[in-house]
Amino acid sequence: MAESQDGVARRGRRGGGGAAMRAARSAVSIETARFIERRIPDFELLTEEALEIIEANAEILLEEIGVNFVENPAALDRWRDAGADVQGERVRLPRGLARQLCATAPARFTQHARNPARNVEIGGRSLVLAPVYGPPFVRDLAGGRRYATMEDFRKFVRLGYMSKWLHHSGGTVCEPTDVPVNKRHLDMLLAHMTLSDKPFMGSVTEPSRARDSVEMCEILFGRDFMAENTVLTSLININSPLTFDATMMGALEVYAAANQACIVSPFIVGGAMAPVSVVGTLTQVLAEVMAGVAYSQLVRPGAPVIFGAFVMSIDMNSGAPTFGTPEASQILYGAGQLARRLNLPFRSGGGLCGSKLPDAQAAYETANTLNAALLGGVNFMLHACGWLEGGLVASIEKFVMDADHLGALHKMAAGVALDTEAQAMDALREVGPGGHFLGCAHTQAHFKEAFWRSDLFDYKPFETWDEEGARSTAMLASERAAKLLAQYQPPPLDPALTEALTAFVAERKASLPDAFV
Amino acid sequence: MAESQDGVARRGRRGGGGAAMRAARSAVSIETARFIERRIPDFELLTEEALEIIEANAEILLEEIGVNFVENPAALDRWRDAGADVQGERVRLPRGLARQLCATAPARFTQHARNPARNVEIGGRSLVLAPVYGPPFVRDLAGGRRYATMEDFRKFVRLGYMSKWLHHSGGTVCEPTDVPVNKRHLDMLLAHMTLSDKPFMGSVTEPSRARDSVEMCEILFGRDFMAENTVLTSLININSPLTFDATMMGALEVYAAANQACIVSPFIVGGAMAPVSVVGTLTQVLAEVMAGVAYSQLVRPGAPVIFGAFVMSIDMNSGAPTFGTPEASQILYGAGQLARRLNLPFRSGGGLCGSKLPDAQAAYETANTLNAALLGGVNFMLHACGWLEGGLVASIEKFVMDADHLGALHKMAAGVALDTEAQAMDALREVGPGGHFLGCAHTQAHFKEAFWRSDLFDYKPFETWDEEGARSTAMLASERAAKLLAQYQPPPLDPALTEALTAFVAERKASLPDAFV
Repeated sequence: MAESQDGVARRGRRGGGGAAMRAARSAVSIETARFIERRIPDFELLTEEALEIIEANAEILLEEIGVNFVENPAALDRWRDAGADVQGERVRLPRGLARQLCATAPARFTQHARNPARNVEIGGRSLVLAPVYGPPFVRDLAGGRRYATMEDFRKFVRLGYMSKWLHHSGGTVCEPTDVPVNKRHLDMLLAHMTLSDKPFMGSVTEPSRARDSVEMCEILFGRDFMAENTVLTSLININSPLTFDATMMGALEVYAAANQACIVSPFIVGGAMAPVSVVGTLTQVLAEVMAGVAYSQLVRPGAPVIFGAFVMSIDMNSGAPTFGTPEASQILYGAGQLARRLNLPFRSGGGLCGSKLPDAQAAYETANTLNAALLGGVNFMLHACGWLEGGLVASIEKFVMDADHLGALHKMAAGVALDTEAQAMDALREVGPGGHFLGCAHTQAHFKEAFWRSDLFDYKPFETWDEEGARSTAMLASERAAKLLAQYQPPPLDPALTEALTAFVAERKASLPDAFV
Repeated sequence: MAESQDGVARRGRRGGGGAAMRAARSAVSIETARFIERRIPDFELLTEEALEIIEANAEILLEEIGVNFVENPAALDRWRDAGADVQGERVRLPRGLARQLCATAPARFTQHARNPARNVEIGGRSLVLAPVYGPPFVRDLAGGRRYATMEDFRKFVRLGYMSKWLHHSGGTVCEPTDVPVNKRHLDMLLAHMTLSDKPFMGSVTEPSRARDSVEMCEILFGRDFMAENTVLTSLININSPLTFDATMMGALEVYAAANQACIVSPFIVGGAMAPVSVVGTLTQVLAEVMAGVAYSQLVRPGAPVIFGAFVMSIDMNSGAPTFGTPEASQILYGAGQLARRLNLPFRSGGGLCGSKLPDAQAAYETANTLNAALLGGVNFMLHACGWLEGGLVASIEKFVMDADHLGALHKMAAGVALDTEAQAMDALREVGPGGHFLGCAHTQAHFKEAFWRSDLFDYKPFETWDEEGARSTAMLASERAAKLLAQYQPPPLDPALTEALTAFVAERKASLPDAFV
């Protein structure tokens, strides 16, 4: 290796660009990569036979057992009108009805950002990366684990904005506990809208909060634009097994009616909310998603919607949910296949892990999930960075580590070039047996883009690394986060919009009593 | 989650089996899983067109540029006799000759262990896992990084023997620096033969050491058995680009003549020993492997041989080799496809990483490589556990962490059951909307094998984990390693064999002068 290190270093110096290259590398960039368009095949784990069995069984589930729409008479009316068998809150769907209703949902849609360069396409061969969603705690090296505050929330939005490989600002990147529960969605939306220019998610914890989300977007994007375009993608969890509660469905109704996108996502701890088998779980997932997506199309045919699947395995010794496991990957691959057969965009988890620390366990589990999501055809990856401790914790260091590693997905998804330059026959002829490639023309022309490199990982010689403090990945990430946040500058926004949004938030807050549960 | 944790715990207590289950879990098992038989498809990254281009270009390389067989007149004679164009040390192979010669190599073979229950099948749908190979340094939490000794070597062999998911004892698990270079192969072989009953690898650093390896196996297995069976798989690196040196080829000649297996493996730092493109690198890899495998078949048609590919990417800023990168995965997937088209067993790297510590970087990079190797159809995975710092270091903690995680590959590879039980329609009917599955008959019958669980990772509630010292994965692994080593007992071996092997080693050592380089 000494030879190659020397070769590269010398070339740098010869060109006089060594210092410039180092400066370029140490500057913090706020460039954002375009969402991923996969140029690699999907991994098709399940056979045609398996998929047909699951699809047939899901139809049986919907027809014989059905789903519950709880405390939602309007939903029951819609189902009755659509030809379902409704008894009490139980909705049974004649074979084929759900799949038929799903057909009006678009296979692919654009979610607009206030900066059009940040628009994302969701569906088809695309992959959009969004950060962690939902943790009530935050953790960082300096402060340890503690309840999240609104200032933590803003910190994550800033980090997300500055993360090159992250396409989306997300939603509840952590759950601030220092703001009343019935008001915090307003502060969170304001943060996404003003501190970042990437697309974001709306509130789903009450229909009124979904309406607030839509209204704030009408201010930011303009009412006319909103009427024609999708600017929100929001997360609607199904209360598995087979139950659709009024809160989540109420939010879905608001969004679908406004032509805004929803992820319809079973939330399953395997063995608790679904059977302890891959095929059984997939059958339930498919039935649930088809019922939920079908319902969105009853609200508004053509409303954009995503096939979600969030399935954890479980440690049957302790009852703890587990992540990055083989069963979770198998379910992810299978769900992706089922979504593609429904011609729907697909969402599954990203950097999931159960570890308490951003350590090796966290990274094994995260990398397993990221790899499965990439090859499994995920179109919208929530929790792509920052997720720790089974989703209880949003971690500053894990956010930076994962966000860096998402670069590897971009390069992997770009596929393999086949042209004459890529074939490199001239280089092979030029160098020949026993030679080496560092100095050849082909290497000179292509080395800069040839290999993905982390902006975080340690690639230094042992002695340098040791002298510089023998830092772990978590320590490097902590330093990188501090550096990014110190250099943060908000993206420009018309001051009139900032003012209007701030006024809306103040008015709405003043109109509500404080509620902390 | 409180509910599900409670549910599982209560069921354990009700059955009176809680204490027994905990005792069973804490006992150290030396059970070894059978090698993996994949019941999942391979990931076919490259198109038919890409594969045909690479194959055509590899033939052009072999015909127009050729390969060098250095300081090896006997090899040049063999090539001349086979119809190659030999000029000086350069061997040019007429189109099709290499592929034709490769055809006599078996698609799959058995490597025998002294314990027949540990025999492994290499090729076809199998995956055999072997530990790290080659590091001159060791690292553990207690002692930091230091040169390896023979006692370190024995420690790794013991850990390998006790690792359930590891099928193979490997070869130079670390490179002991306290024994003369020309004698240490004897001590290393003796350790594999006496401290473990798993299959192992022979020495390749000189033809005479390969002969020692064969002779020691003749003592262990019996000369008659050896004549009929393969008991060694050894690692023959190609001196890329396109060069076969006399030392490695001399060892290959010894092994092939004795019908023992060799991995013929280009060793490539991308951009230095091969072009900076995936297709260019694969072209060179294919040409090199075909030439090496063809040569093994000239020595003895039918000799077992493995298509190897060990390709690192490079950080073009520092010249450091990098691991777990997208380019390395792409090359692995492509090489697997090329190997299958040659009908040869395939070897690629396992838990590769560049990190100095068993931290998050190590685990991201390792998991990326393990996932690619599993889906890429690797049959023999060297470095499956213990590899750190680009292969300079064998790490005790990384060994234990990786060895545990190899369990996930077993479960993933087992595929997805499709039978009536797996379809779980009875469970879905029994539970219905809003119910839960923990108590249902299907869960009771299957929960024990339903989900893979790590024996190392932390799955405890936060408070318990915190009270117990808030340990990282590396700390847990350090404790597990100490526990395993404390409980180690050697597998039984006929004392006469131990004596004969020890005597052979003593005699050979006495016959050689000490050489430390």
